Amino acid sequence: MIDTALRPCRVSTEIPGLADQIARALAEDVGRGDLTTRLTVPAGTRARATLIQKAPGVLAGAPVFEAVFALVDGDVSIAWLVEEGSASAGRRDVAELEGDARALLTGERTALNYVQRLSGIATMAARAVEIAAPFEVTVLDTRKTTPGLRTLEKYATRIGGARNHRLGLDDGILIKDNHIAAAGGITAAIQAARAGAPPAMMIEIEVGDFAGLEEALAAGADMVLLDNWDPIAVRRAIEICDEADVWTEISGGITLDTIGHYAAARPDYISLGALTHSATALDFSLDFVVETPR
Amino acid sequence: MIDTALRPCRVSTEIPGLADQIARALAEDVGRGDLTTRLTVPAGTRARATLIQKAPGVLAGAPVFEAVFALVDGDVSIAWLVEEGSASAGRRDVAELEGDARALLTGERTALNYVQRLSGIATMAARAVEIAAPFEVTVLDTRKTTPGLRTLEKYATRIGGARNHRLGLDDGILIKDNHIAAAGGITAAIQAARAGAPPAMMIEIEVGDFAGLEEALAAGADMVLLDNWDPIAVRRAIEICDEADVWTEISGGITLDTIGHYAAARPDYISLGALTHSATALDFSLDFVVETPR
Amino acid sequence: MIDTALRPCRVSTEIPGLADQIARALAEDVGRGDLTTRLTVPAGTRARATLIQKAPGVLAGAPVFEAVFALVDGDVSIAWLVEEGSASAGRRDVAELEGDARALLTGERTALNYVQRLSGIATMAARAVEIAAPFEVTVLDTRKTTPGLRTLEKYATRIGGARNHRLGLDDGILIKDNHIAAAGGITAAIQAARAGAPPAMMIEIEVGDFAGLEEALAAGADMVLLDNWDPIAVRRAIEICDEADVWTEISGGITLDTIGHYAAARPDYISLGALTHSATALDFSLDFVVETPR
Amino acid sequence: MIDTALRPCRVSTEIPGLADQIARALAEDVGRGDLTTRLTVPAGTRARATLIQKAPGVLAGAPVFEAVFALVDGDVSIAWLVEEGSASAGRRDVAELEGDARALLTGERTALNYVQRLSGIATMAARAVEIAAPFEVTVLDTRKTTPGLRTLEKYATRIGGARNHRLGLDDGILIKDNHIAAAGGITAAIQAARAGAPPAMMIEIEVGDFAGLEEALAAGADMVLLDNWDPIAVRRAIEICDEADVWTEISGGITLDTIGHYAAARPDYISLGALTHSATALDFSLDFVVETPR
Amino acid sequence: MIDTALRPCRVSTEIPGLADQIARALAEDVGRGDLTTRLTVPAGTRARATLIQKAPGVLAGAPVFEAVFALVDGDVSIAWLVEEGSASAGRRDVAELEGDARALLTGERTALNYVQRLSGIATMAARAVEIAAPFEVTVLDTRKTTPGLRTLEKYATRIGGARNHRLGLDDGILIKDNHIAAAGGITAAIQAARAGAPPAMMIEIEVGDFAGLEEALAAGADMVLLDNWDPIAVRRAIEICDEADVWTEISGGITLDTIGHYAAARPDYISLGALTHSATALDFSLDFVVETPR
Amino acid sequence: MIDTALRPCRVSTEIPGLADQIARALAEDVGRGDLTTRLTVPAGTRARATLIQKAPGVLAGAPVFEAVFALVDGDVSIAWLVEEGSASAGRRDVAELEGDARALLTGERTALNYVQRLSGIATMAARAVEIAAPFEVTVLDTRKTTPGLRTLEKYATRIGGARNHRLGLDDGILIKDNHIAAAGGITAAIQAARAGAPPAMMIEIEVGDFAGLEEALAAGADMVLLDNWDPIAVRRAIEICDEADVWTEISGGITLDTIGHYAAARPDYISLGALTHSATALDFSLDFVVETPR
Repeated sequence: MIDTALRPCRVSTEIPGLADQIARALAEDVGRGDLTTRLTVPAGTRARATLIQKAPGVLAGAPVFEAVFALVDGDVSIAWLVEEGSASAGRRDVAELEGDARALLTGERTALNYVQRLSGIATMAARAVEIAAPFEVTVLDTRKTTPGLRTLEKYATRIGGARNHRLGLDDGILIKDNHIAAAGGITAAIQAARAGAPPAMMIEIEVGDFAGLEEALAAGADMVLLDNWDPIAVRRAIEICDEADVWTEISGGITLDTIGHYAAARPDYISLGALTHSATALDFSLDFVVETPR
Repeated sequence: MIDTALRPCRVSTEIPGLADQIARALAEDVGRGDLTTRLTVPAGTRARATLIQKAPGVLAGAPVFEAVFALVDGDVSIAWLVEEGSASAGRRDVAELEGDARALLTGERTALNYVQRLSGIATMAARAVEIAAPFEVTVLDTRKTTPGLRTLEKYATRIGGARNHRLGLDDGILIKDNHIAAAGGITAAIQAARAGAPPAMMIEIEVGDFAGLEEALAAGADMVLLDNWDPIAVRRAIEICDEADVWTEISGGITLDTIGHYAAARPDYISLGALTHSATALDFSLDFVVETPR
Repeated sequence: MIDTALRPCRVSTEIPGLADQIARALAEDVGRGDLTTRLTVPAGTRARATLIQKAPGVLAGAPVFEAVFALVDGDVSIAWLVEEGSASAGRRDVAELEGDARALLTGERTALNYVQRLSGIATMAARAVEIAAPFEVTVLDTRKTTPGLRTLEKYATRIGGARNHRLGLDDGILIKDNHIAAAGGITAAIQAARAGAPPAMMIEIEVGDFAGLEEALAAGADMVLLDNWDPIAVRRAIEICDEADVWTEISGGITLDTIGHYAAARPDYISLGALTHSATALDFSLDFVVETPR
Repeated sequence: MIDTALRPCRVSTEIPGLADQIARALAEDVGRGDLTTRLTVPAGTRARATLIQKAPGVLAGAPVFEAVFALVDGDVSIAWLVEEGSASAGRRDVAELEGDARALLTGERTALNYVQRLSGIATMAARAVEIAAPFEVTVLDTRKTTPGLRTLEKYATRIGGARNHRLGLDDGILIKDNHIAAAGGITAAIQAARAGAPPAMMIEIEVGDFAGLEEALAAGADMVLLDNWDPIAVRRAIEICDEADVWTEISGGITLDTIGHYAAARPDYISLGALTHSATALDFSLDFVVETPR
Repeated sequence: MIDTALRPCRVSTEIPGLADQIARALAEDVGRGDLTTRLTVPAGTRARATLIQKAPGVLAGAPVFEAVFALVDGDVSIAWLVEEGSASAGRRDVAELEGDARALLTGERTALNYVQRLSGIATMAARAVEIAAPFEVTVLDTRKTTPGLRTLEKYATRIGGARNHRLGLDDGILIKDNHIAAAGGITAAIQAARAGAPPAMMIEIEVGDFAGLEEALAAGADMVLLDNWDPIAVRRAIEICDEADVWTEISGGITLDTIGHYAAARPDYISLGALTHSATALDFSLDFVVETPR
Repeated sequence: MIDTALRPCRVSTEIPGLADQIARALAEDVGRGDLTTRLTVPAGTRARATLIQKAPGVLAGAPVFEAVFALVDGDVSIAWLVEEGSASAGRRDVAELEGDARALLTGERTALNYVQRLSGIATMAARAVEIAAPFEVTVLDTRKTTPGLRTLEKYATRIGGARNHRLGLDDGILIKDNHIAAAGGITAAIQAARAGAPPAMMIEIEVGDFAGLEEALAAGADMVLLDNWDPIAVRRAIEICDEADVWTEISGGITLDTIGHYAAARPDYISLGALTHSATALDFSLDFVVETPR
C-alpha cells in the first residue's frame, strides 16, 4: 500500500551507495551548471509535473527517481500513485511532483534515465519469471551488468521477481573452466576451494560434459553450472544432479524465446545475462505545468 | 593502422576520467577480493587469452577494455588484431592477451561488460548513419544515456559515425517547452538566453507547431528542434527554416525503422535516444589458454 | 530584494559542487581540529557577529560565505543586510550572524577568504563593464582562473556584470595558433572543426593578421579572436568582420587602463584575463560579540 | 644546480596532495574533453614548446607546472633552464618541453595558471623579505590564502624567502580577541590553552593595548601578536616583550609600502595577508613549435 | 550533565572528518547490502535497544557510536544514560536507542566496534594518568596509532585524561636520531630546524646519552626526548634539563607496569605507544527488544 | 621461497583497495608535510634501513609495509629476508631498505604501524589455530574488526592460519536472535531467508537452547551458531547437529585460554572476536644508516 500524498523527496537508505551514485550522475549531466534553465527560468518559479509511464511494463527505480530530486534541491515534493514493482498493461500516471521549477528541470533527464533503464530490466525479468514459474524454476541474473550500475540493476531484477546470483567476485564461489585448468582439474579445484571457503558458502562449478559432471559430483560440488549444454543432454544432467542432491543452474545465451524450453528440464535455476545486458528502456516522460510563468 | 605486437596494457588519456571510472567498476565487481580465483589459481600462473567478437557489428571500447587490465594488474600485455571502429560481418578474433592468470580472470567480466555495451551502441549508431547518409543528414545522440556512462556512451556513438549533441546541461542552450512556459513565451525565452549566452554558443529552441516556429525565427533562434512533428508538417517546417538559414533537428522516438522516413525530409540533424537507451549488447567472449597449469 | 531576518545558514544549490568545494577548503584550514578554539572556548558558548565590508566595491560570494557556516555546524543563523552584487562606495555592514561561538570561530577565516577574493573579482569586473558599456561592448572573462576556483571565479565575474566566455575546454571551440599549425592551416582547421562540432556550437578562431583574417572568413569562421592586435589595425579588422557578419573578440593583456581604448573600436567582446588572475582581495572582517562569556 | 636535459615530466612528492590537487584542476578545465584539440590536432602530432617568463620576478611553481604535464599524458618531456626560486630582472626562457601536441595543448592553461599565481606570490614575498632583512625581521605569511590552495601558496611564500606561519587551525595556538572574550579574559584563556596544549607548542596571543600586553606576559604567553598597533606604541610594546623574553609579531594590513616602517620597530616577525590575498599574477607564456604539421 | 531524553541521532561536528570516516566503515561492513536483515526483518519493524558496558572502564566514543546510526538511517533516536568519559567499576547501561529495526541491526556491529576500541584506549589512558598524577607528570600518546584512526584514537586518549602529543608530522618538530645523522649532528640539526620553524613552535630533540644532551642544550633545544634511557641516568638527565629550563619527555616501551617507576623521575611528560597499539577492546553489547514482531 | 635482492617497492594488487587505504593513512600522518624531515634532512640524502622484528611471532603485512614506501616515493628499494607468514621464536631481521632518506623517514611510522598491528593479529591467530588443530576444528575470525581495517585484519588472520568468516553483511546469511524476533520465530526466519537467498549460499542461524536448535534443524538450517552455550550443553548440541549433517560454529568471548576447552567438543568452527579486537601490537623497528651525512 502506498501513501499518495505529496511529501518532500528523500534518499532511500535501502540501496547502499545510492546518494553517491546519483550525485555522480547529476554531476555528469549538470556539469558546471544548467545553462538553459539559469538563463530562461526565473529563480523562484514553481512547477508541477506528472511522471507518466508510456508503455506496458513493471515500474522499477521509484526510490532512485525520487532521490535525484532530493539531491538536486531540497524543495521538491512527490506523491506516488502506483507501487514500485507494479505492472501496467498500458500508459499510466505514476507520480506527481511539485516544487522549484529549476530543480525539476535540472533533475528531469537524470531521473528519467534511471527509471527507464531499471523499469526496462524489471519488465524483462518479470516476463522471464512468468515463463519459468510453472516449472518451479528460479530465474537468476548474472554479473553481465552495466559497469557502475551493478547494485541498481540487480535491484531491478529483484523488483521484476528474479533472484540475484552473486553480486560480485567476493560473495560466492563459482569455479569456471579457466579456474579448473589453472588448478589442474575439477577435483583439485574443488578441493582447493573447499580448503579455504568461508563457512556457509557452497561451491558451484561449471561443467561442460558428463565426465566433468561425474567428477564434480564425486569431488563434492554443492551446485553445478551447466553452461551451453544441448537441450537433450541437459535433462539427463539434471536428473543425475537431482539424484546426487546437488543444485543445478542452466546458462548460456538464454533469451525470453528459449527460456521456456530450458525451464522444462526443471533445473533449480536458470540465469540470463540478457536481463541486464540486453533489456531496452521502458518509456517514461515528465509533463510539466509551470505555476508561476511571468 | 594498428600495431599487432603484444605490449603492456595502458590507460588511454583520450577519454577524460577513464581510470577513475574503471576503478569504480572494478571495485563494484571485485569487492573485497576475487574469492574463486584466489582459492583455485596459484599465484604466478600465466595465461593467454583471445578476445572474440561473436556477432556482426562495430568494435567500440577497445581502449576501455585494455585499461581494465592495466588497472587490475601491471602485468598483462595485449595485441590488437583489428581497429577500434572497424565493422565485421561475422565472428572474428579481436585481440590477444598474455599475462598473470589471476589478473586476467579478475578483470574479465568488467572488461567484457564495457566492450559489449559500447560495441552494441556503436553498431546501432553505424546502422543509423548508414541509413541517413544518402540524405546528407547528420545523426546525433542525446542525453538519454545510462547514468554514469555519459562520456563512454557518447564516445561509442562517435565511433559508430554519429555526432555528439551536447554532452550535458552546461555546453549548449536548448530551450524546451517547459523553459518557454517559465520564461513567458518563445520570444522572451530566446531574448533571455541571448542576453546571457556565452559567445560562440548558438541558441536552439524546441517548437511544436508552425506558430511557434514563426515566432522562434522572428526572435532570432539559430536552430530549431522539431520534436514529434508529423511527417508531412516536418517537411514544410524544414523548408521554412532553410529559407531562414536556421539549423534544423528532428527528434521524438525515432528508431532504425523510421529514421529513413525522417531523413528524407532532409533536416540538418536527426537525434535518436534509442542509440543509448535501447541498444543491446554485442556478444564478445574471452577464451583462455592457461600456460602453467599444475 | 532580500529578507533581513535571521535564518539557518544553508548551502546554495545554484553553484554546482559548492558543498564539496567548501568541505575541502574547511578541511584544509581546520585539519585535525581547531586547537585554539577547543582549548579556550567552552562548548555551548553563543556569539553574534557582523560581517563588515571595509572598502568600496561589489559584494560577491554571499552564498559561499553562508555555506561555509552551514557546513561547519548546523547551528549558525544569518541575516543578509545587502544584496549579492550590490556595490558600496565605502564601509558597510553586510550580514549579521548568530550561533555557536566555536562554529563561528572555526569557519571565520575560510568564509572571509572566499568573500574577499570573489568580491575583489566582481569589483574589478564591474569597473571594466562600466568602462565598456557606453561602447556597447560585452566584457568577458577567460580561463586564466585560479586552479580549483573556476566555477566560483566565473560566478564572480557574472555578479560584476561581465559575461562568461567558455567555462572549460569542452563547452566551446576556440582554435588558436597552435591548433592551426597542427591542423595545417586556417582553412584546414576550420573545416576539421566544422566536421565534428556539436550542433549549435559556433567556431571561433584566433587570427594574427589580415591575411589570416581573410582566410578565416573565407573558410566560414563564426567568430574571430583578435589577440594582441595594434589599436589601428584592430579597428579595420572589426569593420571587415562586421561586413562579413562575423562576431569579434579582442584580447591580449588588456587592463582597466586600456579597456576603454579598445572598446572604442567597438568589437562585440573584449576579454580580460586580469579579472581573475590579477584582482586583489576586497577587505572584509567579522566582528564578534560573545554572548555568554564565562 | 639544475640538470637542463630533457626528461619525462614527473609529479613531485615534495608537496603533499599535489597529484590530487592537479587532477582536480585539470578536470575543472578539461571537463568532458578538449574539443578543439580533438577536432583539429591529429593524434600523434608532436610539438616543442618554450615556457617564457615575461616580466621580472621570482619563479615559483616549477614542480607544479611539470606535474600538470605528467598527469595529462605520460609522454611529455621537460628541461628546466633556470632554478625554482631564482629571480629575473626581465624576460627569460624558463623551460623547454617536448611531446605529444595534444597533451601540451590540453595542459597548457592549467599549468600556466599555477605558475603565474605562485610566481606572483613568491615575487611579492621576496620583495617584502628584501625590505625587512636589514632589520633582522622575519616575514611571515598568514591563513588569508585562496581556499583550496593553502599548501601551494604557503610553498610559494617560502620560495620567495618568507617563513610560514601556522598552516591551519591545528598546528599552532593563536588566541585572538574573540577567544579571549569567550574564555573570560586573557589570563583565563592562556591558562586554558596551557592546560591542554600539545608539548612543544608555544602559546601566542593577540593583544590590543598595554594593559592586555602586561596581562599576557604575566600569564605566561610565549609570543604576542600586536595587531593594528600604531607605530609609536608598537615600538614600546616590543621593548617590553624583549625584556620579558617573549616573541613578537606585528600584523594588520601591512603592505610593501608600509613594511619597512614596521620592520624598523624590530619585532621578531611581521605577517602580511597581502602576500597571498593581493599578489597579482606574474606573466608567463608557452610558445609552441609544432613538429609534424600536416 | 547529560540529557537523558530520547532524541534523533546526529553526527558530532566536534571530530573533524567523522562523517566521512564512519561512512567508509559502514560501507566496509554493509557492502552491497545487509542480506540477512533485508530477508528476515520486514520493512517498517521498530525496535528498542540498550547499549550495555559489560566490564569496568571509561566510556569513550559515544558521539561516534551515535553518528553511526545517524548515517545508517535518519530515524534512530538515542538517550544517553551516562557521560562520555565517565568511568564505571562494573557493568552498566549506557544508552537507550529506539528506531527502525533494520537500521539498528545494520549499524550495530560498526557502532560497537568503534565504542569498544575507543573505550579500551580511554580506559588504559585513564589508568596511566592515575599512576602518573601523584608525580605531576603529564601522560602523552604517540603516533603509534591504528592507520586511519589517528584522530579518533587521539580523541580517546584525551577522554581518558592523557594529553595529545603531535597529531602528525606537520604540527610539531621532533628531531630523531636519523634526522641528526642526516643533518650532520645535533647542533646542525637544531640550527636547521630553528632557521625554518614556524613561529611559536618549539624544537624537541631525541638524545641518547649525556653528551648528546649537553650538545642539545647548548644548541638551544626547547625540549628533549629521553628515549630508552636507564632509570638511573634518566633522573640525572631530568635534573640537568630542569636546571636549563628545558622540557623533558620520557619514552620507550613504557607500560602500565613501568610508568610509575619512570614518573618518579619527574619528567614533564611520559609518552606511551601502548595506549593505542596495545589497548584491548572494552566489552559492550547492544540488547534488542523488537517492538512489532510478526 | 623469497627473492632477497633489493628491488623497487611496489603496491600489491592482491589486497583490494590497498593503495587508497595507505594513501589515506599517509595523509593522516603526513598532513601538510613532514616538517622535521624537510628542515633537517637535505634533499637527495640517501639511507639504508633494516626492518627488525623484536619479539616472537608471525610476520604479517609485508606487502602493506612495502606499499607504504611505494606510495611515499618511487625511489625506495626493498629486499625481504623472510617470508610473509613465517614465525620467529625471537628477534630477527626482516627486510632491508635503501633509498631517499626523506622518503624513508616520512613513511616509517605509518609502515611500522601497519606491520605491528597485522603481525600482532596473525600471531594470536596462529596460536589459536595451533591449539584447535589437534581437534580438527577450524578457527574463524569475526566482524569485530577495527573500523576501516576489515580487509587487512581479515588478511592477517588468514596469514596466521585462521579462516575468514563472512567479510561483511552482504556475503553471508547469519540469522541472529534479533532477526528471529523480528521475523516471528526461527522457522519463519529460515523460510524467509531461503526464499530470497542467493544460490550457493547456506543459511546459518544462531540458537540459544535445545528447543531452538531442534526448530532450526527442522526448518532446514544449513549451519548453526552456538553462542555462549555452556560446555556440557555444547557437546550434546554438536552431536545432534552432526547426526543431522548440519555445520556447527561455537562463539562467545572465547580466548586463547578457553579455546582448547571448546575445541574438545569438536564443532566444525570456533570463532574468536578477540583475534581482531584484542590482539596487541608485535614490536618492530626500523634502524637507519644514513649514507650521505653532511
